[in-house]
Amino acid sequence: MLKPQKKVSESHTIMSEIVLPNDTNTLQNLMGGRLLHWMDITAAIVAQKHCNKPCVTVSVDNVHFHNPIQLGNIVTIEGKVTRSFNSSLEIYLSVYGESPIKQERYLSNEAYFNFVALDSLGKPTQVPEVLPETAKEHEMYEDALRRRQLRLLLAGKLKMEDELALKDILFPKTKS
Amino acid sequence: MLKPQKKVSESHTIMSEIVLPNDTNTLQNLMGGRLLHWMDITAAIVAQKHCNKPCVTVSVDNVHFHNPIQLGNIVTIEGKVTRSFNSSLEIYLSVYGESPIKQERYLSNEAYFNFVALDSLGKPTQVPEVLPETAKEHEMYEDALRRRQLRLLLAGKLKMEDELALKDILFPKTKS
Amino acid sequence: MLKPQKKVSESHTIMSEIVLPNDTNTLQNLMGGRLLHWMDITAAIVAQKHCNKPCVTVSVDNVHFHNPIQLGNIVTIEGKVTRSFNSSLEIYLSVYGESPIKQERYLSNEAYFNFVALDSLGKPTQVPEVLPETAKEHEMYEDALRRRQLRLLLAGKLKMEDELALKDILFPKTKS
Amino acid sequence: MLKPQKKVSESHTIMSEIVLPNDTNTLQNLMGGRLLHWMDITAAIVAQKHCNKPCVTVSVDNVHFHNPIQLGNIVTIEGKVTRSFNSSLEIYLSVYGESPIKQERYLSNEAYFNFVALDSLGKPTQVPEVLPETAKEHEMYEDALRRRQLRLLLAGKLKMEDELALKDILFPKTKS
Amino acid sequence: MLKPQKKVSESHTIMSEIVLPNDTNTLQNLMGGRLLHWMDITAAIVAQKHCNKPCVTVSVDNVHFHNPIQLGNIVTIEGKVTRSFNSSLEIYLSVYGESPIKQERYLSNEAYFNFVALDSLGKPTQVPEVLPETAKEHEMYEDALRRRQLRLLLAGKLKMEDELALKDILFPKTKS
Amino acid sequence: MLKPQKKVSESHTIMSEIVLPNDTNTLQNLMGGRLLHWMDITAAIVAQKHCNKPCVTVSVDNVHFHNPIQLGNIVTIEGKVTRSFNSSLEIYLSVYGESPIKQERYLSNEAYFNFVALDSLGKPTQVPEVLPETAKEHEMYEDALRRRQLRLLLAGKLKMEDELALKDILFPKTKS
Repeated sequence: MLKPQKKVSESHTIMSEIVLPNDTNTLQNLMGGRLLHWMDITAAIVAQKHCNKPCVTVSVDNVHFHNPIQLGNIVTIEGKVTRSFNSSLEIYLSVYGESPIKQERYLSNEAYFNFVALDSLGKPTQVPEVLPETAKEHEMYEDALRRRQLRLLLAGKLKMEDELALKDILFPKTKS
Repeated sequence: MLKPQKKVSESHTIMSEIVLPNDTNTLQNLMGGRLLHWMDITAAIVAQKHCNKPCVTVSVDNVHFHNPIQLGNIVTIEGKVTRSFNSSLEIYLSVYGESPIKQERYLSNEAYFNFVALDSLGKPTQVPEVLPETAKEHEMYEDALRRRQLRLLLAGKLKMEDELALKDILFPKTKS
Repeated sequence: MLKPQKKVSESHTIMSEIVLPNDTNTLQNLMGGRLLHWMDITAAIVAQKHCNKPCVTVSVDNVHFHNPIQLGNIVTIEGKVTRSFNSSLEIYLSVYGESPIKQERYLSNEAYFNFVALDSLGKPTQVPEVLPETAKEHEMYEDALRRRQLRLLLAGKLKMEDELALKDILFPKTKS
Repeated sequence: MLKPQKKVSESHTIMSEIVLPNDTNTLQNLMGGRLLHWMDITAAIVAQKHCNKPCVTVSVDNVHFHNPIQLGNIVTIEGKVTRSFNSSLEIYLSVYGESPIKQERYLSNEAYFNFVALDSLGKPTQVPEVLPETAKEHEMYEDALRRRQLRLLLAGKLKMEDELALKDILFPKTKS
Repeated sequence: MLKPQKKVSESHTIMSEIVLPNDTNTLQNLMGGRLLHWMDITAAIVAQKHCNKPCVTVSVDNVHFHNPIQLGNIVTIEGKVTRSFNSSLEIYLSVYGESPIKQERYLSNEAYFNFVALDSLGKPTQVPEVLPETAKEHEMYEDALRRRQLRLLLAGKLKMEDELALKDILFPKTKS
Repeated sequence: MLKPQKKVSESHTIMSEIVLPNDTNTLQNLMGGRLLHWMDITAAIVAQKHCNKPCVTVSVDNVHFHNPIQLGNIVTIEGKVTRSFNSSLEIYLSVYGESPIKQERYLSNEAYFNFVALDSLGKPTQVPEVLPETAKEHEMYEDALRRRQLRLLLAGKLKMEDELALKDILFPKTKS
């Protein structure tokens, strides 16, 4: 394998923030858009550490906001590359809220951001392969291909030969 | 029909911004995260105009960034409600970039944001129905149901009885 | 007429914002300075769309703040070019506040911002004429000349031959 | 005289800022709107120091931007109360730009902001009189009355008995 | 020992940021003040995680800026509690700069921030003890006492009995 | 003496700000980090006015936060150069909080920031001498040398010959 490889841990990134008044809606919870902004910066750091090239956001998969994060609470965003494709890579982001007073920490949301690396002319360029190490990293590496197929499918770029393939993507056995 | 109805045009919202230096990446293009932030604010305005209640982001569907918007250019975000469900509503956002000097305007991206309306206790509460008027509004109203089914499906909350239903969602005849 | 002409509608711009905590004074109303900042950005977008050149603020006419806009409310700023002169143009801005909960919308203030277009050397350069279409646009086009004369008068650049001219500007018959 | 009096120097306020990238337009000069925002904050500090009450902007007189201030330069805004009326007061703002490298300082613009003081119910309330001390302060105190009359006139709240009064306001002998 | 104890790792905090244009001086390096701001937020998160109470900055020890961090580079700030005293605690911050393109990471600066925990009346309140685990954590725990003595000495609150004590603080044998 | 000299008054700088919601912690007091940020900008203005060259922060001496400044209050930061050394200079900053309503003004904190001037290649370059005029300025000029020696000592760059020198620095007779 001649293509360069990098471990997931080499670009692992953590961002911590305190929810300030301007980050909140009228219910005093962190606004979705501000969180997406922070997630994108975290993902951009992961992407650039992995590729050592300027990287730009190409797509964001379905994001669900499960648990609101309140004013004054701590937001911790963790970013990990899952897998790379020719010139693109997928980054998994998990977001935790934490009340420093109550000492409770909870998962707020999870999402996948996709970036592409650009060369000096601004054209997509090859990126290093991802070398998963832990069992969890291997699982995310495998799932990344399915998510990519679904993304292409939803974007209408992939023709499904039969329903089985679609079912395999949507209901993988390793998930059921 | 006793549930209140509101037209799409009653909550139609336009946001215009100039891309400033802090909004850009090292290639001097608008960062994806900043754009998602602005889109969320636009969608929140639409949601609150339609519901006359506090509304919070519950999910964001796949967002694809097609055309970058450069430093100094104008960003125009247009938000329209497509359809409401019990306590939630879907908002369609289209983003245009525009170079004031070259006088060219281009579609940068499109996305669907989903909001839920909350009552004074912070619990989901019923929202007015959407009354589509134009042909385009009717089309988006119909498609909204399919997108919702796909969202629930992808979130694992909906059991598919057979593959046909899935195919219907992903390859609707009106779209093919 | 060889000078290029553009319609008012070609540069019509709308900006929407939510009033966030940092935008408010201790009474939790939108601060005048923040609103002036947003108005200037809206006007700059109108000016650049009309001129297709970099444009800078040269003056702001008397601005009166009639109705305060509260924290969490929606601000809608609408900008329209009224008339252009050699290298400058006047932009009319109307600002509306809106409580999404009470569903009421009210005029907060109105103002005229004046911009000048600059060439690549940073020198004032000719701008397209404004082509008014509606009755309201024609009225604003006519009034723009009077406002310009008053501006020059107040800036001491215009000598008044007699009091009648002054009276005509200040008490135009079309306004009485 | 039973109404409390305060000297101009008691509320004199200076604000200094460095022009950062996000404060500039595409020509790398300070945007008019950002400067208006800073001027309003300076004026609000003057007003509250003079009145010891919450104060809000009611109007801004004609502002002319004479000399642009470049990226990286220092902005110094000086605010002084000129005169108070029942519940309102006028504040004179002068803005200087300064290149720290070239060691040159120049007047960028001047403006008058008008504020009103509010009581605990948010209603206009009486403010202390201004006690001018220097010759310049006395001159500005006198001129403030003329500017107020012109403001009321332009706002259509004052009926002019004859053209002479108007001429007196616009062409005061002390100015000619 | 009845006083509650917490491990260093329980409040360990990492913040990552990208240096944006508004964070830089005219040489396009991260401004010292912006970095101090980020360091204070990181330290505040550590303090609140350790104490589970609101915590405020009481002092910042000598901070030296060794290596500038350039526009577009990644800043990683790591915060660790070193030791607590009655109602206060010391937090060690290390700041790394990193060029994602050149793949080099370097220490930019180090500092100690001191916080105090407050009860519901805003009065200083007891904080948990720090339980060092690693050799490095034990070393920092020991050094923290010396730094505290020097701080009190420099603040003139501690009388030195003889020069030896002073020498011990400034030239500890474990450091020589 | 051929080296250029400048008076303290020539670079004296005042910054005024209002504490806004995003500047405060959960107790609604100004956060230490935000204040350090403003202090650094004020010091940078002083340094550049004195040197007429780009200047960067090299170190910040012990900063103690004595009195919190509340939301809505006015912050006044005053910066004065105390003394210059080859290519560096020390700036004294005093920070006052002020409640406009209660009309009380109090010292919040004091600190010394050290800057270095850079030439066009980014290398340290000679700066003008400071010419103290008032008694207070002379005292600060003398003290600046002691603070510099202590800074170098604490940074381990200066070898102390005996304990007496150390005692002289820490307990100067003019201070006792």
